[in-house]
Amino acid sequence: MSQFNETDKLAVNTLRLLSAELPSAANSGHPGAPLGMSPAAHVLWTRFLRANPKNADWINRDRFVLSNGHAVAMLYSLLHLAGYDYSIEDLKQFRQLGSKTPGHPEYELEGVEVTTGPLGQGVSNAVGLAIAQANLAATYNKPGFTLSDNYTYTFLGDGCLQEGVSSEACSLAGHLELGNLIAIYDDNKITIDGNTKVSFTEDVLKRYEAYGWEILKVDNGDEDLDAIYNAILQAKKSNKPTIIQNRTTIGYGSLKAGSHDVHGSPLSADDMAQMKVKFGFDPNTHFAVPQEVYDLYQQRLTTPGMEANKQWDALFAEYQKKFPELGSELARRLKCELPANWDSFLPTYTPKDSALATRKLSEMCLQSIHNALPEMVGGSADLTPSNLTRWKEAVDFQPPSSGLGDYSGKYIRYGIREHAMGAILNGIAAFGANYRPYSGTFLNFVAYAAGAVRLSALSGHPITWVATHDSIGVGEDGPTHQPIETLAHFRAMPNLHVWRPADGNEVSAAYKCAMESQHSPNMLALTRQNLPHLAGSSIEKALKGGYVIEDVANPDIIFVATGSEVSLSIDAAKILAAQNIKSRIVSMPDFLSFDRQPEEYRKSVLPDGVPILSVEVLTTFGWGKYSHQHIGLDRFGASGKAPEVFKYFGFSPDVVADKAMKTVAFYKGKEVVSPLSKPF
Amino acid sequence: MSQFNETDKLAVNTLRLLSAELPSAANSGHPGAPLGMSPAAHVLWTRFLRANPKNADWINRDRFVLSNGHAVAMLYSLLHLAGYDYSIEDLKQFRQLGSKTPGHPEYELEGVEVTTGPLGQGVSNAVGLAIAQANLAATYNKPGFTLSDNYTYTFLGDGCLQEGVSSEACSLAGHLELGNLIAIYDDNKITIDGNTKVSFTEDVLKRYEAYGWEILKVDNGDEDLDAIYNAILQAKKSNKPTIIQNRTTIGYGSLKAGSHDVHGSPLSADDMAQMKVKFGFDPNTHFAVPQEVYDLYQQRLTTPGMEANKQWDALFAEYQKKFPELGSELARRLKCELPANWDSFLPTYTPKDSALATRKLSEMCLQSIHNALPEMVGGSADLTPSNLTRWKEAVDFQPPSSGLGDYSGKYIRYGIREHAMGAILNGIAAFGANYRPYSGTFLNFVAYAAGAVRLSALSGHPITWVATHDSIGVGEDGPTHQPIETLAHFRAMPNLHVWRPADGNEVSAAYKCAMESQHSPNMLALTRQNLPHLAGSSIEKALKGGYVIEDVANPDIIFVATGSEVSLSIDAAKILAAQNIKSRIVSMPDFLSFDRQPEEYRKSVLPDGVPILSVEVLTTFGWGKYSHQHIGLDRFGASGKAPEVFKYFGFSPDVVADKAMKTVAFYKGKEVVSPLSKPF
Ligand SMILES: [Ca+2]
Ligand SMILES: [Ca+2]
Repeated sequence: MSQFNETDKLAVNTLRLLSAELPSAANSGHPGAPLGMSPAAHVLWTRFLRANPKNADWINRDRFVLSNGHAVAMLYSLLHLAGYDYSIEDLKQFRQLGSKTPGHPEYELEGVEVTTGPLGQGVSNAVGLAIAQANLAATYNKPGFTLSDNYTYTFLGDGCLQEGVSSEACSLAGHLELGNLIAIYDDNKITIDGNTKVSFTEDVLKRYEAYGWEILKVDNGDEDLDAIYNAILQAKKSNKPTIIQNRTTIGYGSLKAGSHDVHGSPLSADDMAQMKVKFGFDPNTHFAVPQEVYDLYQQRLTTPGMEANKQWDALFAEYQKKFPELGSELARRLKCELPANWDSFLPTYTPKDSALATRKLSEMCLQSIHNALPEMVGGSADLTPSNLTRWKEAVDFQPPSSGLGDYSGKYIRYGIREHAMGAILNGIAAFGANYRPYSGTFLNFVAYAAGAVRLSALSGHPITWVATHDSIGVGEDGPTHQPIETLAHFRAMPNLHVWRPADGNEVSAAYKCAMESQHSPNMLALTRQNLPHLAGSSIEKALKGGYVIEDVANPDIIFVATGSEVSLSIDAAKILAAQNIKSRIVSMPDFLSFDRQPEEYRKSVLPDGVPILSVEVLTTFGWGKYSHQHIGLDRFGASGKAPEVFKYFGFSPDVVADKAMKTVAFYKGKEVVSPLSKPF
Repeated sequence: MSQFNETDKLAVNTLRLLSAELPSAANSGHPGAPLGMSPAAHVLWTRFLRANPKNADWINRDRFVLSNGHAVAMLYSLLHLAGYDYSIEDLKQFRQLGSKTPGHPEYELEGVEVTTGPLGQGVSNAVGLAIAQANLAATYNKPGFTLSDNYTYTFLGDGCLQEGVSSEACSLAGHLELGNLIAIYDDNKITIDGNTKVSFTEDVLKRYEAYGWEILKVDNGDEDLDAIYNAILQAKKSNKPTIIQNRTTIGYGSLKAGSHDVHGSPLSADDMAQMKVKFGFDPNTHFAVPQEVYDLYQQRLTTPGMEANKQWDALFAEYQKKFPELGSELARRLKCELPANWDSFLPTYTPKDSALATRKLSEMCLQSIHNALPEMVGGSADLTPSNLTRWKEAVDFQPPSSGLGDYSGKYIRYGIREHAMGAILNGIAAFGANYRPYSGTFLNFVAYAAGAVRLSALSGHPITWVATHDSIGVGEDGPTHQPIETLAHFRAMPNLHVWRPADGNEVSAAYKCAMESQHSPNMLALTRQNLPHLAGSSIEKALKGGYVIEDVANPDIIFVATGSEVSLSIDAAKILAAQNIKSRIVSMPDFLSFDRQPEEYRKSVLPDGVPILSVEVLTTFGWGKYSHQHIGLDRFGASGKAPEVFKYFGFSPDVVADKAMKTVAFYKGKEVVSPLSKPF
């Protein structure tokens, strides 16, 4: 006998109608997917999902990720029914400027786990959420104290399955045996271009089986609530990630059901009316929610969720007594605070220390700080020996069955999957518990993950990219591996710290910023080749993003440089000094940190009256922000020995000095306005 | 009985040793993969590959794509053995600056089909090469005149299989039933992080079977030449794409065989010596090639390839007589020339024409020119009704079995696979026959394909991105769909035209540039919202990349704007005119075209002495190149009605006029140097 009764059917249809009302009210949005997915959503939210709408951030809640984010009207409707802080009035403001109900789910909204919309990201974030849960559980659970055992559920459509980022993430999820991850695939055979027959005819379940997933099917996802229930129940028992292929009709109930016309445009008033009649609702009433539907959600989700949270609080209080060290560590992490004085472990250097590649200095930094930061979780996209991202004693995050590590491990072998790595970082950060995930790859290949990096910046996830081999300094691997446009790309992205440290102290500064960032991601562009430690650098100064590293009274020219070109500029300045041309050298390791300094400070670094010349062995694009003239590389690089390639492109002290002299001569007698002096 | 004899074994070992000599000579490079893949390469190149080393660009050659491009030492060795223009001296210059043998395969090199190294790209390019072949055959072959029947072979390793771009491309290849595509997977169980067990435990063949591929296995790819031969033979008979899992030992023959240590570092001198002894070579001789090996390649590849080319030339000569129209069309295309006067079909507009979205104007342009340009192949990543990329009469490129089109179709349904789309565009362009592929997606999601776009620019493939929904003008979909950093990213990339047309004439100019580009890709950023046609625009002027669209004598300020902000600037100028502030308006639809103009012209557009204010509803990053002060959007956007969002962020004539007045006031009395006036 079914456990679902008439009230459940009523609730499903309420959810359908409510979800379709939102786009109609906004005259914009996507009714099709919600109409098809409402039954699965209803079953999941009323029979499985453990969450506390009155404390949305409770750490042991189940995560629900709407990977096909365009179906957001359904998510807001669910959040409303469940008692989160979304009123009917909020739903009516769907997609209006400044409302709580924007056009796609946004991370900062209550009850929204991750920002979705760009396809393939959500399910990949879900892999990260599941990794974080497995790690938290393996780190803190004790017999009788199951502090973490939540599931991550994700809904996804054809688009998410077609995107390569999800292929990467799901292959890794299968390898990692993430039994806490359950994906429900809205198989409606429709995408924007029409029937999936036009481009998507692969056997999805077989592919997921090949990844090592459990695969399940629901034949009639439009109506068969029991089948949905049984599939989720079975999925929870599996020790693999599970995908449930849920066969549905896009736009179920609409006159345009089953067609792509119902995907991205609101239903007509007539269509809405007939659908209400069909579902037994008053065609003239909008945003109707019968009381028994509220009651059902209260009884099935809100009340048990609040109760579970309460029990967990009690359990955790007892845990803190019994395991004071782990307990206080977790309590600290749940407050999103770093350990006091963690930064005392950051290495510092003087010019007497050996010249080293900044990637090596990064490794030394990680080695030094990892013990102090249990929330730090590392990894690399199969470039560990090149990125130097692994501290010596690291345990791999691996399924215990592999014999290669366990779930308490904090080093993730991402495989050659940069985009998934970026999305997984976001998921780990979104999990909470103060996770500080970082990843490794070559700087040039962070571009593969651009879609995920953008969502890091938009959501403000405090994740870190350790991006080595940051210029033509990679040498022989040639132009396919030599970044040119990369830093411009990421500096142009709002809210992203893009560090290019010049020496050891600046590497430490970058890590300090990265770990202490609460709402900004960080990227560290690091050299393959050795760099000297500079006399004028310090963690404190570098944290300002830009600072005077060498100075004279009344300079004739200011060099502003980053990374390997800071020491180059210092060498060029020596040549100029011999000709009585006085240079100030500014190191500018991170534009964003500099931009966030007070104007007075910034103008003290780059004042009016002196020509400013930037030196960076990458595109000059964007340097107009800080300098009048630029030395850079506005073409692709070349394969050859790194020192020869540097020289070939004019990155040698003499050529830089010569260009500086031309700059001084050009501006002689002209009024020089600092690029920081602006009309508004 | 085996068809392979002792000379074949000698040849395989010669290829192994030669491939390992290159990294040793360079003290840089990757010997591991070549040592494992040499047997498969030898079988393919001497028993199957149809190519003419004396005419490397022959259109009906088989394509060989080394997707794991780091194994390039083997490719150069093969090209040398086959008689392409690579001498032993060239091999000795491996990875040296300015040599013909750079660190990864580069498209412009003889015998190299596509640039590879960034993993996953090559196999995805191969899908494009196979699509182009199928299209060329379906378009031009006639009974008795098989002008096109080549295969595309690709070697790939674990990395290529893990990258999402290849998942996307191979899923599409399965859908498209590309029987002309054969992939040989170098299954050596090793990646840089060690054994593939650490991250890559999926069942690859099962996954490919799920995509609709033929799957085959070779158990001993180190030695069993017959098994390799039989597998390729069987693959050629399939009407699906085929993947052959070829089990090999990385670094076969080396003391470090089977370990990741042999992947990316040259072998020691001792190791090289013992390997030579093992293979029966003199340990003290370097770069040794026995004459019988040269003879074998001559007999098996070079001679038959030259002969096949000769026969094809005769066939094509006869074809041109029998099918003069198609024959001359193909002959024209093989010369990489566009039809005379094709551009007379480009629409032009006057201000009397209705305001339209530039995406709509793009559609009208495609509709108008497609008949004149048989080499134009379109498509979209499942956004056809939004990108408006399909001309009305278009036939879909589909397997005939689908009933949805055929291989002569010129509209590709890419599915929701932007990265693969980018890589496939590159493959289609690399095929030759003057293909001009274009693709459609939202501008913001071109970032998903950044890895492929970079290779378009580096290789100079004349491909086009039709990138619609180019700003906060997308409105309700919100910040996940609103580009901010995107244009900066792509403008910073060398050799990429990034168009943001302001009206119909500028759209036509963008298409003229895109179709006539021989060595540069183009991107068209197009609006969702309507824009007026401007009095001062023309195709000719717009092709300069930047031009004066409205002018006055002695302007007080110069606006430089793109796309939707050109008409906005014109409106702001009207407000200023009422206050006796005189404005010049510059439309700057494409930075690259402008940068390629003579300095005199550029300075005439943006002269010294007048403050220049840029207006673009995207990041200001990079505008310092052309303007003193910038109006832009250095934060993420917002969900809301497009006109409200524009207004909210200050993109209205009054706010722009106000900022312009501040700019005029700020620079009053100051010496104003044009950003184009530079010391060097
Ligand atoms: Ca769908
Ligand atoms: Ca491998």
